[in-house]
Amino acid sequence: MGRWPTGSRARLQEAALRLFVERGYEATSVAEIAAAAGVTERTFYRQFGDKREVLFDRDRTLEQGIVDELGQSPPGRSPLEAVGTALDQAASAFFADRLTFARTRQVVVDAHLELREREALKMASMTDAIAATLQRQGVDATAARLAAEMGIAAFKVAFAEWVSPDNTESLTDLLHSAMARLRNLVTE
Amino acid sequence: MGRWPTGSRARLQEAALRLFVERGYEATSVAEIAAAAGVTERTFYRQFGDKREVLFDRDRTLEQGIVDELGQSPPGRSPLEAVGTALDQAASAFFADRLTFARTRQVVVDAHLELREREALKMASMTDAIAATLQRQGVDATAARLAAEMGIAAFKVAFAEWVSPDNTESLTDLLHSAMARLRNLVTE
Repeated sequence: MGRWPTGSRARLQEAALRLFVERGYEATSVAEIAAAAGVTERTFYRQFGDKREVLFDRDRTLEQGIVDELGQSPPGRSPLEAVGTALDQAASAFFADRLTFARTRQVVVDAHLELREREALKMASMTDAIAATLQRQGVDATAARLAAEMGIAAFKVAFAEWVSPDNTESLTDLLHSAMARLRNLVTE
Repeated sequence: MGRWPTGSRARLQEAALRLFVERGYEATSVAEIAAAAGVTERTFYRQFGDKREVLFDRDRTLEQGIVDELGQSPPGRSPLEAVGTALDQAASAFFADRLTFARTRQVVVDAHLELREREALKMASMTDAIAATLQRQGVDATAARLAAEMGIAAFKVAFAEWVSPDNTESLTDLLHSAMARLRNLVTE
């Protein structure tokens, strides 16, 4: 199950987000992030590769969490049900107690094209990983891809609602609502 | 209705794709693309902004075509039906007789992270534009977003099948099949 990173990785992410908010994303250097987290620049690059990635590394961990949950899905579930449950379990555990970070992070991401671009790519990668897992479980390629896309669609909607400033609902509840509405849209 | 670009824009896109295939994406400069298309570098930058965008500009036109079709959607259709029809009409007209270009282009895009990233962002932008159009027509924000995401999911699946080397089906037929399978996934 994917967990929020700890140690120097977490410190770098917290420091980066704080500096991005205080000074702006462009104006903050990797050297400053590393210094604020008390590590070397080399450690930063070993962990994240580039400045953008410091806001996204957790998504790769989330992706692994979703794939792990999906791999343990009981047989007999429809692909869409299996994806919905895996997303719910992985994301709820992953983002537990991280609403404040996620909210601030989203404001920074939404304000920068190159961050939105990286986010879109991460979502596409998560969709690919889910589709590949479903295919390994015997779902045909097209159905696997569509079920993965629909699950991620519901996840994106629920996540955007969750991080919106006035939300008070849990990510789990929002994800359940989004999946239910998605089903309604098809049958109406 | 969005149309495939003509004039210097189209010449630049054809020249760029040819050079990317012959010499590789990284090894091709904007100066070389401009020279091959018989225009100045300045014209290139005015049309596309950067090297990546030469393979994507048409998507902005496609986005406009989809939004226009959706705006003319007869009342009483469900959001998902309206999106499916708009995608079908806009994309079929837009890509008519462009299968060879689209196929070659996809091979180049799939091979480069920065191009896949731009493509993911374009798809997100198209989804946003569809959702915004549905909202203007009175669909609530969540339903608009989910219907847009589902339509784009079906479009991505159909488009990938359409450009695959051994495909002989039309984009329209593949889009209809993808929408039908999407509906089946929800009801099974």
